[in-house]
Amino acid sequence: MSEFTSELKNDRFIKALLRQPVDRTPVWMMRQAGRYLPEYRATRAQAGDFMSLCKNTELACEVTLQPLERFQLDAAILFSDILTIPDAMGLGLYFSEGEGPKFRKPVRTEADIESLQVINTATDLSYVTDAVSMIRRELNGRVPLIGFSGSPWTLATYMIEGQSSRDFARAKTMLYTQPELMHQLLDKLALSVIDYLNAQIRAGAQVVQIFDTWGGALSHAAYQEFSLAYMDKIVRGLITHIDGREVPVILFTKGGGHWLEAIADTGCHCLGLDWTVDIGSARSRVGDRVALQGNMDPALLRADGAIIEKEVASIMQSYGSGTGHIFNLGHGITPDIHPDNVKVFIDAVANFSTRS
Amino acid sequence: MSEFTSELKNDRFIKALLRQPVDRTPVWMMRQAGRYLPEYRATRAQAGDFMSLCKNTELACEVTLQPLERFQLDAAILFSDILTIPDAMGLGLYFSEGEGPKFRKPVRTEADIESLQVINTATDLSYVTDAVSMIRRELNGRVPLIGFSGSPWTLATYMIEGQSSRDFARAKTMLYTQPELMHQLLDKLALSVIDYLNAQIRAGAQVVQIFDTWGGALSHAAYQEFSLAYMDKIVRGLITHIDGREVPVILFTKGGGHWLEAIADTGCHCLGLDWTVDIGSARSRVGDRVALQGNMDPALLRADGAIIEKEVASIMQSYGSGTGHIFNLGHGITPDIHPDNVKVFIDAVANFSTRS
Repeated sequence: MSEFTSELKNDRFIKALLRQPVDRTPVWMMRQAGRYLPEYRATRAQAGDFMSLCKNTELACEVTLQPLERFQLDAAILFSDILTIPDAMGLGLYFSEGEGPKFRKPVRTEADIESLQVINTATDLSYVTDAVSMIRRELNGRVPLIGFSGSPWTLATYMIEGQSSRDFARAKTMLYTQPELMHQLLDKLALSVIDYLNAQIRAGAQVVQIFDTWGGALSHAAYQEFSLAYMDKIVRGLITHIDGREVPVILFTKGGGHWLEAIADTGCHCLGLDWTVDIGSARSRVGDRVALQGNMDPALLRADGAIIEKEVASIMQSYGSGTGHIFNLGHGITPDIHPDNVKVFIDAVANFSTRS
Repeated sequence: MSEFTSELKNDRFIKALLRQPVDRTPVWMMRQAGRYLPEYRATRAQAGDFMSLCKNTELACEVTLQPLERFQLDAAILFSDILTIPDAMGLGLYFSEGEGPKFRKPVRTEADIESLQVINTATDLSYVTDAVSMIRRELNGRVPLIGFSGSPWTLATYMIEGQSSRDFARAKTMLYTQPELMHQLLDKLALSVIDYLNAQIRAGAQVVQIFDTWGGALSHAAYQEFSLAYMDKIVRGLITHIDGREVPVILFTKGGGHWLEAIADTGCHCLGLDWTVDIGSARSRVGDRVALQGNMDPALLRADGAIIEKEVASIMQSYGSGTGHIFNLGHGITPDIHPDNVKVFIDAVANFSTRS
């Protein structure tokens, strides 16, 4: 029996994920707790660097809740980073200003990979589960809480390159020249992600999302073998029900629009779509097997309100009637967006959606 | 009547583009004249910077022919850059080492766009047509010569951002907030590209390819309106026959795998495919309307010969029997590739292909 006894006051996000009828299309935004919010920047300044903010339970909880105070969002998402697992494996994650995440000890050799240990979330990443529990308590049933992780392939790219990359030269070289070594790394990561997400679910996460940010850089065949196969393994390894509720799983491969049918075959509940995909065509391809989350180009949030509203209406119309749509951006919101435009976006979803 | 009277000794590239029977699958590589070749680096050192090499007719001709001396390639491609048009418009193209192309005077305002003039290739870009004519003479019918241009949208992104970009913030802001202004820019670019490619065709280019490197960054709807519509205009504006031969047109939108049917609708002869697309699925989607060019991940050229050969065989098998396939990489070859691996790749195409 969970410590969380409060009923969900707003469960339209969970219902849409399970393709049950909803009163209107639910909405949240990837990176909704972030630098575009002045209150986030203030808390971040208080914490110091980005990882200190992730590791400070109270402050991580605070920034998770900030966007809910401003906008009619239907979900909260744990404030954390996709690279916590490799950091816990000892690679030394740090952020150099304006350059994105980096690792002090990238993984390059067979010996590097053999020495990696599958993480134990309870001991290695308790700051994450502590934050999940605190956020869940603070939410008090207001909206569901999403836990998340990077996909094994996406984590592997950062671990091998040591930072973000344009063409993934080192990671792809390992994939093509030492596929067995790559599989060994991906398997350790998949087992770690299973442990990590199950710990988040036990700590209070009601939905989980896997971010496969760089799956779209792979060839058709390599995607199936080196990214999707491990997300499939994760889906099969997750806790499916807790507190009498099903735990929906969202898989999001950026640039993965070619592979929606195969992603749906994992048994996940929902596919995240980037903005290059026409959501209506996606729906006709995957049918009623999964819900769809997305997919407005985040760049549209720089436009005038009327243009944002028109785009929201257009995506709604493309999806069509019936449940199974969770509105979101096609990727994370960027730091330069004005919060007023976010309000236009979120309100437009409420205004243009119809009952299912 | 053209000055070029020599018959093509190897026309399997042209035949495959027109979906006529061929003795084997033709092959060439995007960026085949480039930094991975030591002889290219020597010529480049002689020329000075990259644009000086493009503008030196003899040396541009020399580097165009270099890869043909090493490998059994079925086409030559003009050595030049996709950004010659904005350079000719007065934006001041330069290359800073390791950072890619930049413009001294990016296009930002309505006044900037209104003052742009559609280029006149004969006067503004005669160094390109001079190079085309010299290469065509030097080839003497050995293989066909490909002329090329960037797509209007791709040119516009560099012109507005002033350099390469991760998320095209300025270009997309203009697209969404001032669509009419963006259309004005794209129209000037499309008219310039038509003039430029027709001049290349008159100067001796036997095939033309349009590189839409950044079309894949657009949403489904924005791609149709702001990139594809202008490539469509270009296809309709090009010389279709010269010297008693049809001039095939190849459209390549990187990341455009969702939109193959719509790209084929332009009436182009061939679609370039990046490596994320399964070529067999692409073929079943577009049927026999167009040829397909691609699509091995260039990262595979870092692997061992046996792995390269296996991938070539796999792509061949996925395409299946019959004509209409031009083998290529899914994007340009990178500078770190060893020429020996390129030889394995090119030879594998000859060895694994079957008569159509």
